[in-house]
Amino acid sequence: MDIKFLQSLILPAPTKIAMIIMDGLGGLPLEPCGKTELETACTPHLDALAARSALGLTVPVGPGISPGSGPGHLAIFGYDPLQYEIGRGVLEALGVDFDLGPQDIAARGNFCTVDEASLLIDRRAGRISTGASKELAELLRTIKIEGVETFVETVKEHRFAFIMRGPGLGDALTETDPQKIGVPVLPVCALKPDSEQTARLVNQFIEQARRLLADMHPANMILLRGFSRYPEIPKYQELFGLQAAAIALHGMYRGVAKLVGMQALKVEGDALDDEFTALERHWNDFDFFYLHVKKTDTAGEDGDFMRKVQAIEEVDALMPRLLALKPDVVIVSGDHSSPAVLKSHSWHPVPTLLYSRYVRADGIAEFGERACARGSLGVLPAKDIMPIALANAQRIAKYSA
Amino acid sequence: MDIKFLQSLILPAPTKIAMIIMDGLGGLPLEPCGKTELETACTPHLDALAARSALGLTVPVGPGISPGSGPGHLAIFGYDPLQYEIGRGVLEALGVDFDLGPQDIAARGNFCTVDEASLLIDRRAGRISTGASKELAELLRTIKIEGVETFVETVKEHRFAFIMRGPGLGDALTETDPQKIGVPVLPVCALKPDSEQTARLVNQFIEQARRLLADMHPANMILLRGFSRYPEIPKYQELFGLQAAAIALHGMYRGVAKLVGMQALKVEGDALDDEFTALERHWNDFDFFYLHVKKTDTAGEDGDFMRKVQAIEEVDALMPRLLALKPDVVIVSGDHSSPAVLKSHSWHPVPTLLYSRYVRADGIAEFGERACARGSLGVLPAKDIMPIALANAQRIAKYSA
Repeated sequence: MDIKFLQSLILPAPTKIAMIIMDGLGGLPLEPCGKTELETACTPHLDALAARSALGLTVPVGPGISPGSGPGHLAIFGYDPLQYEIGRGVLEALGVDFDLGPQDIAARGNFCTVDEASLLIDRRAGRISTGASKELAELLRTIKIEGVETFVETVKEHRFAFIMRGPGLGDALTETDPQKIGVPVLPVCALKPDSEQTARLVNQFIEQARRLLADMHPANMILLRGFSRYPEIPKYQELFGLQAAAIALHGMYRGVAKLVGMQALKVEGDALDDEFTALERHWNDFDFFYLHVKKTDTAGEDGDFMRKVQAIEEVDALMPRLLALKPDVVIVSGDHSSPAVLKSHSWHPVPTLLYSRYVRADGIAEFGERACARGSLGVLPAKDIMPIALANAQRIAKYSA
Repeated sequence: MDIKFLQSLILPAPTKIAMIIMDGLGGLPLEPCGKTELETACTPHLDALAARSALGLTVPVGPGISPGSGPGHLAIFGYDPLQYEIGRGVLEALGVDFDLGPQDIAARGNFCTVDEASLLIDRRAGRISTGASKELAELLRTIKIEGVETFVETVKEHRFAFIMRGPGLGDALTETDPQKIGVPVLPVCALKPDSEQTARLVNQFIEQARRLLADMHPANMILLRGFSRYPEIPKYQELFGLQAAAIALHGMYRGVAKLVGMQALKVEGDALDDEFTALERHWNDFDFFYLHVKKTDTAGEDGDFMRKVQAIEEVDALMPRLLALKPDVVIVSGDHSSPAVLKSHSWHPVPTLLYSRYVRADGIAEFGERACARGSLGVLPAKDIMPIALANAQRIAKYSA
């Protein structure tokens, strides 16, 4: 079902939808046939809500695909993540909260090491410290290219975001990272005529960087990849008629939410309950709230099963504050799975709960992977959750007679 | 899976398929976590059949979409309802059992009220009585337009079907209903060159109607919308090799069935058991039978939970008469959900039962929403039911070697 078809049926309604995304929520047991992180967690509030909800397992991108946070979020936000792509450079810029303009070109940058013959010998410059990386970024900021502005924003260790701003830039550019060592760093080439001038400007930047960094071994060169521009994604307001707010502590999630037209709310503090405080404070101002929980994913990627269990329990303890606001529709899900035993994002479908007054409740008083596998939503594409939520919020008109 | 691919594998077989469609079958509990209409109904025969069947929940159009009867039926008949659309005018003409020809143009008509300045002041002419509407239709039938025939068929109250018949007509026409009051009624405009002559003819009809109705306040003008033509839908005979019969008491359902090539059988009487009598009488003449039950939807739309329960029980009581005919495949489903608590069509997936000698029975001895959610058909598009039914009827050849 195309998102434009859905758009044609959207109705206004005075209802509110809250979407709680526990990053990397889905898990795996430590021992085969044991319990997952979510099944292990003591979650009385989520279990009680599950009993009044429809449950299912969402597939963010496709069977067997382990999604990054960008496509994982686009999917649960209602978009086909293979139709609407967010470039690597854009994700990197969003991740450092850079205020990317619609015409800017962004790339993911690495400091790297080249030898005397200019051959690449370390694609990550020995993973220099973030502090050292910041000093080098200052150096790169002294580069001037005529007719455009450039920005270098440190991400972590050897990683930075590179942004070029100016008129008529194109993002159809090849990468400079040859993805192997012992060969020269590649120049940027234009893949389309409209990007030829941009390629020349980026290559000028790279040459100046090479000269400035010459004595900064091991970080004596840079690599740029994932050149991309702000993607054209229909916004929540025009698409769903929703005034939507995003509550997230990390730039990348605020950034992806802003891409789809959500307003990123200010959170006072950096704890999960500060996010719930922001939710309460702005409850009357929006129709839709996305609240992002980071710790579940961090613990999963660190391989820390019990820390992930605790992160889930922390969310559970805060659920009464959400429910006290009497949302018409509540979605609790994740953008992908991050099982501690895999220490990474994974392809496993994500446990998902959808509550409303008009949901056909499964009567399963447990929120967990196997409970969700028995739920009436079945195993479904993550992008199908938003249409179902909108229907439950009585925001979709009947189709045809 | 494209329907044409399925067509390429169709085999002849001496088997019979019966499809019982309870309109708006899917429901919701009156109180959260209570029982739905179907779960409340005492249905010993359906429950016994369920035990020997595969169960599932069908999604007629897409997640979150509440379908009208047209797309709901096309889906359960095996067609993608977003690929094969039935125009509003065609549905209106079918609804009054009008024998629409393939070249006819049909529209939905309303009597409406305009003021002395010809501005629209009531889009429904105060919902005049059906009797008054019929008299005005007689008046409109006196209109003569050179080169074409026109038909005006009263539907109910202010509503009528308008049909124009003649050579070379086009249906790419705008609507005359401005959808708001205080503005003039719009003229019909052609959206494509092949509809320009038709637009002129329809505008002539409207002008004559305006003059004839001038003194008939409040019904002193007409509105026309949903201009459409008989859609090109591959027929059951060519597509599935089925001689198919439709048993329905209402014109619209007979009409949609005729669109896909079914023969609408004459039903003597207007009760549900008269429909089963027609089924028995014609059992030897067809391979496929569609039997439509209207009361479930009417009760749901009226918000009458118990009347819907009774309508389901009435079907259950008649099931032995169907089963005595020894159909090879039985489908019991709906074209959409119509929960009494919503008093309308809804987006909820539809409980569906598929019985045959060769089905992998789930052994769930209950026909209800939550029972079907546990069934082995899973949550599936409604259009997938027909291929599975045809396979169970041994009417689909092996694909490739």
